[in-house]
Amino acid sequence: MSLQAVLDKVDENLPQALDRLFELLSIDSISTDPAYKASCLKAANWLVDDLTSMGFEAARHDTPGHPMVVAHHMSDPDKPHVMFYGHYDVQPVDPLELWHRPPFEPAIDDTPNGKVIRARGAADDKGQVMTFLEACRVLKQTTGTLPINVSIFFEGEEESGSPSLIPFMQANTELLKADMALVCDTGMWDKNTPTISTMLRGMVGEEITITGPSLDLHSGMYGGPAMNPIRVLTRIISDLHDDNGRITLPGFYDGVEELTDEVRAQWQSLEHDDDAFLQSVGLSEAAGEKGYSVLEQIWARPTCDVNGISGGYSGEGFKTVLPSIAQAKISFRLVGTQDPAKIQQDFYRHVEERLPVDCTVSYKTKDGSPATVMPVDAPAFKKAQQALTTEWEKEAIYAGCGGSIPVVGHIKDILGMDSLLVGFMLDDDAIHSPNEKYSLRSYHKGIRSWVRILDALAAD
Amino acid sequence: MSLQAVLDKVDENLPQALDRLFELLSIDSISTDPAYKASCLKAANWLVDDLTSMGFEAARHDTPGHPMVVAHHMSDPDKPHVMFYGHYDVQPVDPLELWHRPPFEPAIDDTPNGKVIRARGAADDKGQVMTFLEACRVLKQTTGTLPINVSIFFEGEEESGSPSLIPFMQANTELLKADMALVCDTGMWDKNTPTISTMLRGMVGEEITITGPSLDLHSGMYGGPAMNPIRVLTRIISDLHDDNGRITLPGFYDGVEELTDEVRAQWQSLEHDDDAFLQSVGLSEAAGEKGYSVLEQIWARPTCDVNGISGGYSGEGFKTVLPSIAQAKISFRLVGTQDPAKIQQDFYRHVEERLPVDCTVSYKTKDGSPATVMPVDAPAFKKAQQALTTEWEKEAIYAGCGGSIPVVGHIKDILGMDSLLVGFMLDDDAIHSPNEKYSLRSYHKGIRSWVRILDALAAD
Repeated sequence: MSLQAVLDKVDENLPQALDRLFELLSIDSISTDPAYKASCLKAANWLVDDLTSMGFEAARHDTPGHPMVVAHHMSDPDKPHVMFYGHYDVQPVDPLELWHRPPFEPAIDDTPNGKVIRARGAADDKGQVMTFLEACRVLKQTTGTLPINVSIFFEGEEESGSPSLIPFMQANTELLKADMALVCDTGMWDKNTPTISTMLRGMVGEEITITGPSLDLHSGMYGGPAMNPIRVLTRIISDLHDDNGRITLPGFYDGVEELTDEVRAQWQSLEHDDDAFLQSVGLSEAAGEKGYSVLEQIWARPTCDVNGISGGYSGEGFKTVLPSIAQAKISFRLVGTQDPAKIQQDFYRHVEERLPVDCTVSYKTKDGSPATVMPVDAPAFKKAQQALTTEWEKEAIYAGCGGSIPVVGHIKDILGMDSLLVGFMLDDDAIHSPNEKYSLRSYHKGIRSWVRILDALAAD
Repeated sequence: MSLQAVLDKVDENLPQALDRLFELLSIDSISTDPAYKASCLKAANWLVDDLTSMGFEAARHDTPGHPMVVAHHMSDPDKPHVMFYGHYDVQPVDPLELWHRPPFEPAIDDTPNGKVIRARGAADDKGQVMTFLEACRVLKQTTGTLPINVSIFFEGEEESGSPSLIPFMQANTELLKADMALVCDTGMWDKNTPTISTMLRGMVGEEITITGPSLDLHSGMYGGPAMNPIRVLTRIISDLHDDNGRITLPGFYDGVEELTDEVRAQWQSLEHDDDAFLQSVGLSEAAGEKGYSVLEQIWARPTCDVNGISGGYSGEGFKTVLPSIAQAKISFRLVGTQDPAKIQQDFYRHVEERLPVDCTVSYKTKDGSPATVMPVDAPAFKKAQQALTTEWEKEAIYAGCGGSIPVVGHIKDILGMDSLLVGFMLDDDAIHSPNEKYSLRSYHKGIRSWVRILDALAAD
């Protein structure tokens, strides 16, 4: 059976591949909210059943959080062995009123840029996960086996800090070990340029709660003498940046390296359209560190952002309350060799230096992870690059990635494997936002891309 | 019929007076939330019916918002004529989980400080309103009439900025006009010291919304170049105060007068227990302007506070979103002759000076009002002070008041009347907070106090 025949079968079976993806997308597996625990379980079971039906040995592994799914298809001991990682959980959907259709009722929408699959998780990460499974399915159906040995590892807590991931990996190194990992949770440079992500930013995430008075107070009776925790919190946040957009924690930039001239030149050759990138989200100026390009700000510079803030009365109308507590979720994106543990401690010190006598603070930590840089000269990277270039008829590039994929660091630390990050998301997929979508072309050519990559990795 | 006989009747009828208050308290008339519109209407109707049953000519007057209730009992054209103002609407009840019983199921609770009436609105303002109505009821029942001419004016929007108040007053000056106003929406110095409030802080309230990107973004893809509106908002708020707790708007303190030595001495003689006041709400230090006592900070100094803030993801867990919008509700308490319109404009300028190129701002104004100072030497004030002193067996004091009661300014400006502010709330009544209560003693002696005040005002 020729590779072309397998690819033809992908084209022919696309409607069925979409039906399966829609089934998975209709499960509201929001991992961060305990109310959706049963849905996460349902998604895990769905994947176990699907993998089993394809001839994998698949099992659900329960954890204190949401289950893991692990599956194996060992084709030939002389062939390479890859472990594919993905996640079946999705982000919350609020603000729900901004969605044009229910987020868990997937549908194909016609847009000026072509057909898209619309649903929460369409791109991040269910659509991407299914590109790989559908590639395996067609290979298996048409050739009776897979060209290399494949393990599958899905978690259901990626969008909520992956609390069970490290313990599970540590306890199951033999189950998960392979020659290298494949990860499909990243995007393309643009809709025509296939991309292998080779630099990932790390992350420190902290939820802080400032408590002032022991109860909510009336600002008429207490306004003045009573400490307002919102004011304390806004000072803490405001002081995290200077006027040049640099983060003020002492030593924060230790381990952040300037780009080499070579890398800078390569990135400049990409001719990133800064204006279009910003305009697509209603902005006109890069708001990050002064003196760095948009690409550098996203791929090569650390950041600090507030992902949520709350305190006092936020409903309709006005309430002259002095609140007892104020909260914020704050995250740092890390690059180079920045140390998450040191930055966490420096952040705590920053907070505590600004804490008045009558306020207390508590923290809730979202696991931190350092940044990662991949070995782009390894043969597998070259093979994958060539396979992608052939499929998309355009040179596949090595790119940075502004996001954090902590699992990549854990795969390296715990399992000793490098990860090949290939993904088909586009910048306007609105992942984590209302009306998330995944290009139908990404889904279709994503499946074809994995067929070609698996085939290429089998070659000597 | 002697005054004593009327007072005895108050004591005898207290259980029925409580039943009526409980009926009113069980109506969830939250004016700021449109979902409770029918409840506000129900409360207004209840008052019309109750006043009618007492022999008042009472009517509901509908407005674009919640209805007004106006009633008259004209006893004798040769006697003085007072207009009693109160409000039947209440604050929202969130956070509901902190209430020990449902907020609209009133009950008597035994506490270490005596029996209390527990419900949203028990103190602010339904309990206080009913002290006056019950006084009128007993006077009417026992003497067949009222000692002076009484008009009643209730609104249902006091807790939501009173949007209909000024237009209604302007359109109904003849209906509302009297010799002076009585207002029962303030508190006592302490549980034994009856109090006439003679200085009220004014208010400027603004809800501001900062918009950055046109949609919520993923901080992995946009963190760095994308402007985060929460960061902008925290800078705006943080910059409103300097390190001494003073407000930084230029000219903000124009019209704020230092206390005269005489007033300062009088306030010092009250021996306010700053420590107990702060400790009762979990604080140890006055957090307002450095160099001023707690009483001065509440009664005689202006403030700026944040009553609510929101933006991004505030649910369980973590979401690495860069939000499109961030909002805050900010209020200034004014004293002396500070000009609300000027302060509003200065605040707008403060915001706009800190607005980066890619952010926009919108405002929603809660009506502003200047501070008020009362004519304490007028005979009616002396009569009321004597009546209160007799009832409570302790000298009634003239005090400041940290809160804003905008209607008092409107009564002066539109109807040309001064207001006598007498109220029986205590500092720990938790108005605007969970578990609001009103001391049963306040209710009982409040009714008796109004009987004495109405009787005293009838005397030459």
